[in-house]
Amino acid sequence: MVGNASALVPPDREQERAKRTQHEILLAAASLFASRGYRGTRLVDIASQAGVTTGAFYFNFKGKKEVAHYMVQEQHRLSSERAQEIMGRELPGVITLMHLSASMGYDIITDPIVRAGTALSSETQLFPEVDRRPWEDWINAVRGFLLRGVEDGDVSSTANIDALAHLIGPAFAGVRIASAVLTQYEDLLERLQDLTEALIPAFAAPGRAEHLIEATRSIFSEYRERLALR
Amino acid sequence: MVGNASALVPPDREQERAKRTQHEILLAAASLFASRGYRGTRLVDIASQAGVTTGAFYFNFKGKKEVAHYMVQEQHRLSSERAQEIMGRELPGVITLMHLSASMGYDIITDPIVRAGTALSSETQLFPEVDRRPWEDWINAVRGFLLRGVEDGDVSSTANIDALAHLIGPAFAGVRIASAVLTQYEDLLERLQDLTEALIPAFAAPGRAEHLIEATRSIFSEYRERLALR
Repeated sequence: MVGNASALVPPDREQERAKRTQHEILLAAASLFASRGYRGTRLVDIASQAGVTTGAFYFNFKGKKEVAHYMVQEQHRLSSERAQEIMGRELPGVITLMHLSASMGYDIITDPIVRAGTALSSETQLFPEVDRRPWEDWINAVRGFLLRGVEDGDVSSTANIDALAHLIGPAFAGVRIASAVLTQYEDLLERLQDLTEALIPAFAAPGRAEHLIEATRSIFSEYRERLALR
Repeated sequence: MVGNASALVPPDREQERAKRTQHEILLAAASLFASRGYRGTRLVDIASQAGVTTGAFYFNFKGKKEVAHYMVQEQHRLSSERAQEIMGRELPGVITLMHLSASMGYDIITDPIVRAGTALSSETQLFPEVDRRPWEDWINAVRGFLLRGVEDGDVSSTANIDALAHLIGPAFAGVRIASAVLTQYEDLLERLQDLTEALIPAFAAPGRAEHLIEATRSIFSEYRERLALR
């Protein structure tokens, strides 16, 4: 009985502590990858910055590569969660897409793990086995939102939806990389807003472009304000 | 006299041989980076695939990192050369820009060193000190072509040229990465054409969009034919 009762509490605490340790390791790795690059970061540096022993490190991850892969997964999980939340609002398709872009930009700026995971997942030289899935997920999601946009009356029925679905996610990724190199993400939300506005005439239904451009401005300014208020 | 005469020939030959060795090393590195990634490629693998001793390798490069940096420089040099050649044709600004995009796509598909150099230069996790210069050069060049396009009557005088200049190069880069991950560059020219067509309505002067879309199609089909004829 005593054995049972005492067994009830510690595992929870231990699990919580293990999770916290794992999170500390990810945070330390994210910050080191950003400043020194993946290749320039040693496992011992991650452990030391996380304030854990290398033993504790190996208890959580097989090595540096596993940390990187886990980071990509974590980012994907978090972004999917956020997407679910936004899609739950049942806004029109194009408006949902704009919220997703702005919110991903916001998360990249504010969350080091999302930032590092997003960066790692487009590094084909670092991981030649880089995962196709996030790219395909983007393409399919964008296609779905644009098709919904046709029903909403926002997207022209003659728009080349397949071409647009293939380029919106990739263009977003390229703008992210340039913003990282040129301003350490300081101008990311502005650049993503410019990209969104530039693409609107490519798909807007007749007479809808102006409304969609206004919506873009209002959505991005909402996220920029949130950023300023942090 | 004899010493002089003999000194005239060998240095040329030696220089030629040295250049050839350097090129073999770059080619071997480009192919290994593509299949195993930068991190997964060892210096000895590069030397062995290039058919040179590690001594010959070190005679040409300080190490693997220098090979990568030299590859980025080579790609930048080659792309600038190509750009000079295209600009020398004195075509309208927007048409020049389309030729540059299509020709860069073509070179990425057909030249392993351009391909590897382009890929390396957007890997911020691999080289956190990644060079701002190629990004800035793109932005300035695109701005120049769009401004010339205003004079040519192709670009609307109310277009947000600064925003477009900041996003066209980055969007190109993102589309390149997605094409690499999803099709090993097989659809790169199609995807770049789609991107170009999608952006035309964002800057076209009234009544010019259709002409520019036709020009895009004809330019890209020219490069696709060249690709088929290789």
